[in-house]
Amino acid sequence: MQAITLAGLKATYAKGTRVSDVMAEVLRRIDSYKDPAVWISRASSEAVMARSAALDADPSARALSLFGVPFAVKDNIDCAGFPTTAGCPSFAYAPSENATVVEKLLAAGAILLGKTNLDQFATGLVGTRSPYGAPRSVYDTRYISGGSSSGSAVAVAAGLAAFALGTDTAGSGRVPAAFNNIVGLKPTRGRLSARGVVPACRSLDCVSIFANTVGDAAIIAAVAEGFDAADPFSRPMPAVLAPPDAFRFGVLPVASRDFLGDVGCAALYDAAIARLVSCGGTPVEFDYAPFRDAAELLYDGAWVAERTAAVGDFLDAHESGLDPVVKAIVASGRRFSAVDAFTGSYRLAECRNRADAEWEKMDLMLLPTAAVHYTLDEITADPIRRNSHLGRFTNWVNLLDASAIAVPAGFRDNGLPFGITLLAPAGGEVGLTNLAQRFHAASATGAGLSRTPVTVEPLSLLDKGVDLFVVGAHLSDMPLNKELRDLKARFVTAAQTAPDYELYALANTTPPKPGMVRAPSADAASIAGEVWRLTPEAFGRFVAKIPTPLGIGKIHLSDGSEVSGFLCEPIALQGARNITSFGGWRAFIASMTSI
Amino acid sequence: MQAITLAGLKATYAKGTRVSDVMAEVLRRIDSYKDPAVWISRASSEAVMARSAALDADPSARALSLFGVPFAVKDNIDCAGFPTTAGCPSFAYAPSENATVVEKLLAAGAILLGKTNLDQFATGLVGTRSPYGAPRSVYDTRYISGGSSSGSAVAVAAGLAAFALGTDTAGSGRVPAAFNNIVGLKPTRGRLSARGVVPACRSLDCVSIFANTVGDAAIIAAVAEGFDAADPFSRPMPAVLAPPDAFRFGVLPVASRDFLGDVGCAALYDAAIARLVSCGGTPVEFDYAPFRDAAELLYDGAWVAERTAAVGDFLDAHESGLDPVVKAIVASGRRFSAVDAFTGSYRLAECRNRADAEWEKMDLMLLPTAAVHYTLDEITADPIRRNSHLGRFTNWVNLLDASAIAVPAGFRDNGLPFGITLLAPAGGEVGLTNLAQRFHAASATGAGLSRTPVTVEPLSLLDKGVDLFVVGAHLSDMPLNKELRDLKARFVTAAQTAPDYELYALANTTPPKPGMVRAPSADAASIAGEVWRLTPEAFGRFVAKIPTPLGIGKIHLSDGSEVSGFLCEPIALQGARNITSFGGWRAFIASMTSI
Repeated sequence: MQAITLAGLKATYAKGTRVSDVMAEVLRRIDSYKDPAVWISRASSEAVMARSAALDADPSARALSLFGVPFAVKDNIDCAGFPTTAGCPSFAYAPSENATVVEKLLAAGAILLGKTNLDQFATGLVGTRSPYGAPRSVYDTRYISGGSSSGSAVAVAAGLAAFALGTDTAGSGRVPAAFNNIVGLKPTRGRLSARGVVPACRSLDCVSIFANTVGDAAIIAAVAEGFDAADPFSRPMPAVLAPPDAFRFGVLPVASRDFLGDVGCAALYDAAIARLVSCGGTPVEFDYAPFRDAAELLYDGAWVAERTAAVGDFLDAHESGLDPVVKAIVASGRRFSAVDAFTGSYRLAECRNRADAEWEKMDLMLLPTAAVHYTLDEITADPIRRNSHLGRFTNWVNLLDASAIAVPAGFRDNGLPFGITLLAPAGGEVGLTNLAQRFHAASATGAGLSRTPVTVEPLSLLDKGVDLFVVGAHLSDMPLNKELRDLKARFVTAAQTAPDYELYALANTTPPKPGMVRAPSADAASIAGEVWRLTPEAFGRFVAKIPTPLGIGKIHLSDGSEVSGFLCEPIALQGARNITSFGGWRAFIASMTSI
Repeated sequence: MQAITLAGLKATYAKGTRVSDVMAEVLRRIDSYKDPAVWISRASSEAVMARSAALDADPSARALSLFGVPFAVKDNIDCAGFPTTAGCPSFAYAPSENATVVEKLLAAGAILLGKTNLDQFATGLVGTRSPYGAPRSVYDTRYISGGSSSGSAVAVAAGLAAFALGTDTAGSGRVPAAFNNIVGLKPTRGRLSARGVVPACRSLDCVSIFANTVGDAAIIAAVAEGFDAADPFSRPMPAVLAPPDAFRFGVLPVASRDFLGDVGCAALYDAAIARLVSCGGTPVEFDYAPFRDAAELLYDGAWVAERTAAVGDFLDAHESGLDPVVKAIVASGRRFSAVDAFTGSYRLAECRNRADAEWEKMDLMLLPTAAVHYTLDEITADPIRRNSHLGRFTNWVNLLDASAIAVPAGFRDNGLPFGITLLAPAGGEVGLTNLAQRFHAASATGAGLSRTPVTVEPLSLLDKGVDLFVVGAHLSDMPLNKELRDLKARFVTAAQTAPDYELYALANTTPPKPGMVRAPSADAASIAGEVWRLTPEAFGRFVAKIPTPLGIGKIHLSDGSEVSGFLCEPIALQGARNITSFGGWRAFIASMTSI
């Protein structure tokens, strides 16, 4: 089964294939797919074909970023014209409006195929807690699909949709990605609007994206994201630096590698570490305790009362169609007091504080998405404890306000897929995109049922931070480098300007500083310097403090790229010594001190 | 009684007066002050004089920012060597370390006088809920001092200390400032460490500062502030723009001016509005509902369970020395469930969202600090309801993550002081300082018992945002001005460069752009432009996008100041038209379009 990717669709449409033809094939796939538990409600063939025909008939539609892209939506997210069941028939209501995210995707030309199955009220990581049946891993029907976004993950992995929306409170957007060999993007809380989403734990819920490639997930997120005043948990995204080429990635210390005895996980996690090293990374051990402690708070603490707040009254008043495990979990929230809730929030604040110190040690973190993959029979035998096993490495992520991309990472000896997750603090998922793509390609897993290798398409849409080219007193070993380090700038690379610059030793500067000007001529040269990466805020603070006669403009580098960097007012060059021939400030300084 | 100010002490010490002499006078004042309820424990005279002598004997100590400055500390903040009672004798413990803030102040040369009285466990805005007695307003002993930081406010207002630390959860650092004619700075949550502070509502508690002038409070805050990894609620401060000279200030719409029938408040609030207008402001009405709704959440909602979490078990286990009102309030937190707590947090998130939209309309907000000022007898007659009346305009501030400076604003007909509060979103208090100082001076209230007018000493330590001088396409009516507005930049003022610049019309730019260079000569001139203010982050994003050949350096303005502004690489001036004689881009454009 061929995976449906944005690049694939784009190429297909570019060749003149009609949306109607593509969608007819998609509908055929859906009709013939073996698993009857993927969908809760489907768009009619007539509706899909009418939407396709409308897109085909509108020449301006071709410019839409998701032109003719078929997608599925987890059935706890409102889509006008479909009941929202949240996996509970008696809960169903008919929303009059699309959820904000759905509205944005449709406006971008995407085609809605239907609503997918889930663990009831998104309470579970298994995919078995639904009166609409239990979707299975696309690789083995004895095994669970993972949940709660079970149907969405299977729809993408089985080649029935290009992407699907899920939700992710404790791992529901990542665990099923791992169990079906696809990508699961768990954006930063508040990046995608939750207006029109049935809450699970409202303070933690995120809309998530399943796709076959990291690049697709990033493009879809860019369409779906944005501040939404109608969602009180919507917020502007903090700026986080993308990992530099020579990045540090956190790995579990050996003592924290409790994979529940799963030797496949241990070996595949080791392989994933080696793969990230081959992508240019350096593994660093860190203290996993604050993350583990936060995870325990979610499952053993008062946060379950958020589920009670969301649907407790409904469950108390209804009997039919309720999953007994879900009902018991939601009811358990009533045993916690407000004192428990606040005490838990203090413990969480302490965990966050300790976690922040660990994040300082790394540019990103690498974890198994789930250590184990159970059969349906195993879940039936021990539904609560084994469910919590699945969340071991996903639970804490929203509590500690992190972002995550679950990526396929190989196959177990039994042929089932295994996945890892790359994580970063809030706002960091955008900066992880290019690296996550390279990791996925290097894993050679393909996507979903398709084993065709995925292609890497570096995206330029990244908000990676601001790269700054320095040539003088801010170089690594120079007196003002501390200013960059104090602003938590990261060294990216040594670099050279294009051969169009002149360098001068400025008079009367303390510490001594050079001035650089672009002046293409026979006397100009490439000037050596360094690129450092800063958040926009740190960059702003840095620029604001630069004294006369220096300033920040754009520097042309020898590789043809352009970055922000130091320029000098021409007036300051009068009487300054032209030191271009040294090729850089460091060489000039060395010549002075060697005298 | 002369108020003790930092400037006054500095002048005194500069004249050669010894710390020991100043402190002997301070001790004399404390001994002779009429109100016996100010202090819970005092530093011994010997200890104060020994510390003074040590400072006098150490020539290097003179450089300390708080050299020889006497201060008091609310008795819910740990000071090594003093019991911490939190206003409850049976709760008392002997801390082995100073609270982080106290440690910083002592290290800066301040002299600790003792621990001050408070509403027990900082639960109250009245100052009457203490077994150590009820401090009175320095202006009339029939009237309450306000609380919970009662003793700290009185100590400053009575001229017994230069400043005092309080805490402020729902108004405890502001109401007593208003009732005693002094300044109460309620910093942004997490700016000053709460390590070593007995919690009231831990998620909301702030250490606050009482002083006689706004400038003093700002200087002290700058000493006491800073991220503290030992306090999980410590956090970096968000950057907020200081109000521009022509600022907009929010005033209560008439329908929301429910001052409990207090005509004095109504008249003095009107006078305060007029005074801010005379300081250059424009009043804007806004919707007070989201702020009022948040205030109701604090008093009627689950947050009281934070007090239960803090001291509920202690109160359950003890009888003696407990204030019965406090005991009842703390116990009431047990009736709330975790569902209540989370539901409250959702309501609060909605309030915050609505409040954010209101903040967009103004640079700061002006509110009465408290509408009414009760006698002790009035509080005794109705201790809970009248306490909540006092918090009407202070309650919501920490819940909605705002910052506040309470400032004296005149006197009622009965001779009692009245205060207003200037408010801004998180991080905004630093930017309010200069304006708050001007308001205080214009109020002509003096400080505390002293009616000597306070002096305004503009502080340059302000993190006001970054001012940017624009000369071309970013001017108000030009095509790229939208870029500034999209970044929420605020217009500050029209301005002129020093007469040392040349302006060129650059070739081949879209939209047309000028380039400016500093080139003092007979041909140079003053160039007209505009100053816009941005947050460091917005400034960083702006600079990062500036294309070749432009950049940002420092521009010398005609008033002698220096701001960030546009510069141009000299290479781009080759072949560009020198338009310096037009005096600015706008005049040049007008000349072109009129052709």
